[in-house]
Amino acid sequence: MTGPRFTPLAASLPATVPFVGPEAQERARGQAFRARLGANENGFGPSPHAIAAMAAAAGEAWKYGDPENHDLRAALAAHHGCAAENIVVGEGIDGLLGYLVRLMVGPGDAVVTSAGAYPTFSFHVEGFGGVLHRVPYAGDHENPEALIAKAREVAPKLIYIANPDNPMGSHHPAETIAAMIEAVPEGSLLVLDEAYIEMAPEGTAPLIAPSDPRVIRMRTFSKAHGMAGARVGYAIGAPDLIRAFDKVRNHFGMSRISQAGALAALQDRTWAAYMQRLIGAARDKIGAIARENGLTPLSSATNFVAVDCGGDGDFARAVLEALTDEGVFVRMPGVAPLNRCIRISCAPEPELEILAEALPRALARARAASSR
Amino acid sequence: MTGPRFTPLAASLPATVPFVGPEAQERARGQAFRARLGANENGFGPSPHAIAAMAAAAGEAWKYGDPENHDLRAALAAHHGCAAENIVVGEGIDGLLGYLVRLMVGPGDAVVTSAGAYPTFSFHVEGFGGVLHRVPYAGDHENPEALIAKAREVAPKLIYIANPDNPMGSHHPAETIAAMIEAVPEGSLLVLDEAYIEMAPEGTAPLIAPSDPRVIRMRTFSKAHGMAGARVGYAIGAPDLIRAFDKVRNHFGMSRISQAGALAALQDRTWAAYMQRLIGAARDKIGAIARENGLTPLSSATNFVAVDCGGDGDFARAVLEALTDEGVFVRMPGVAPLNRCIRISCAPEPELEILAEALPRALARARAASSR
Repeated sequence: MTGPRFTPLAASLPATVPFVGPEAQERARGQAFRARLGANENGFGPSPHAIAAMAAAAGEAWKYGDPENHDLRAALAAHHGCAAENIVVGEGIDGLLGYLVRLMVGPGDAVVTSAGAYPTFSFHVEGFGGVLHRVPYAGDHENPEALIAKAREVAPKLIYIANPDNPMGSHHPAETIAAMIEAVPEGSLLVLDEAYIEMAPEGTAPLIAPSDPRVIRMRTFSKAHGMAGARVGYAIGAPDLIRAFDKVRNHFGMSRISQAGALAALQDRTWAAYMQRLIGAARDKIGAIARENGLTPLSSATNFVAVDCGGDGDFARAVLEALTDEGVFVRMPGVAPLNRCIRISCAPEPELEILAEALPRALARARAASSR
Repeated sequence: MTGPRFTPLAASLPATVPFVGPEAQERARGQAFRARLGANENGFGPSPHAIAAMAAAAGEAWKYGDPENHDLRAALAAHHGCAAENIVVGEGIDGLLGYLVRLMVGPGDAVVTSAGAYPTFSFHVEGFGGVLHRVPYAGDHENPEALIAKAREVAPKLIYIANPDNPMGSHHPAETIAAMIEAVPEGSLLVLDEAYIEMAPEGTAPLIAPSDPRVIRMRTFSKAHGMAGARVGYAIGAPDLIRAFDKVRNHFGMSRISQAGALAALQDRTWAAYMQRLIGAARDKIGAIARENGLTPLSSATNFVAVDCGGDGDFARAVLEALTDEGVFVRMPGVAPLNRCIRISCAPEPELEILAEALPRALARARAASSR
């Protein structure tokens, strides 16, 4: 008996995982983390109205979710001042990126992204046989000019940028992104990942005509709305592009509970405003903890802070591992020189206190190891 | 500006939807259904323990679900007497079928299924450019011998069979499926969709070595467990096949709430046993209602009953449309001669009473229309 007859493409793919989950680390450690600060999750949690809506929907879980996501799309359209035809809802931005790449990228097709940018996007591109062209960050920012220059060179199907950026937490003002859209070469589509946009300064989100065919915007309930585990993302774009998702998506793929939760979360503007203040205060607190330990927090437009540990990637890795041993889950960028940083999620005070308490010991261990 | 540069395959696909949801029908009618009996949902709902687990997990929805689905896989492995390495959890059987097809089927690859069998499987195959070879049902049963004979002819990557069957509710005994597995040609993989297996007579599920490379079994929490809206399915197969899902799946795609609900549902064996009795009684009730109206209920091994309306597809369609007008949501098979039936989901007594009340009027209307 031979093994499974995979497609040549599937056979060539590694059984890679873009991220190892904290639960796997906990199982390996034999102990739960004391502070869960690594996955850009939002420990302040969902709106109480969203929690109530999800709890109420649990009893209705025998029904499939509405495959058209009608009510949520209508509410999102009203929120964004566009038509429901401009919006597709999917299983997180991860899921939507997968569908988009499948629609656009075949074997050998070029795609432009940044070295060190979101690994799951790259996972999808490679998964459909696309060829990634990566340009370096400019300092701690993705580099729109370099991305466009590379696009002019390789004529990619897709150009990916996250604004604000993950993993550095940096951002470009709206004008920079608007200028980038103007410069998108004919035949390329800009994927503007705005997962963190609600936590960025006013003026970070550019005004884009919803049906502008040059760009598709990705948004999520995972970050500002604190619903990563519910898997709800959406994209805003031109109707013919949005409609094409129906060709490939898992029509009944949305959890009914998550649909109800996202709708309630969207409508709770009080909580959304409160969340901006909580996140801002937590960013300040992480910055203060970093500085107290002689480290440099980077300016953040997101719900996490990249903290420059003052050495190279090996040193940051040593700090991360020492924090892991202390029961503090953090992550770090994968590419130099970004990987001089560790990345710490905003969280309620008690978890940040654990960080404050553990970081000096972790740094001392990392420094002792690096001076050996 | 040109439109989106889709891949040639994506450009060729229709923006089809395998099923229209009942919510879309309700919006078109301007009125909610009085009885929701069309989607093979289980209106008896999830285990109370599962509801409680999901409600409790709603507050934890800020955390991504464990991408390894460790706890659920471990519990499923214990339940099935296999290793966790034999199990992959995914976003419903629909999601898992999509991943499997993507791994195995490229443009031009042959796939064998039955004419009238599960449309979402065919949607995935066509979505990846596969070529479907459909064999007819034998009466109201899928035809294992014909499927195997066609497979010997076209050397397909995949052979699909559902046991019990959807949309007819029929089933084959374990020995028939076991014999089919023995006959799977080298180089083909049997996809055994057992979505309804918990509601079939004892002895319907064949004993299969979990690592048998000739077959992958699909199971779900959508049907017997009453959790269609939570999107939890799983597959049991050889470790190298199961591991390959990691190459393409949405690793963080599972709702954390759904993971918690599925685990609780699996452990509530009392509810599972109770559910079998409830489903059995509802099947009998649907059969009685059908017979009272001069229709013929087909024997069912599932949580729905296919009811032969005694005419052709047009007549059954007229009955269905009249029921829809009465506020009773049902569906019907898409292919003759299966489409002489309408398909009615098991549900609590009050909804079946609405069916009993509405069906005579619906039949009268359909008969009046067909005699015109």
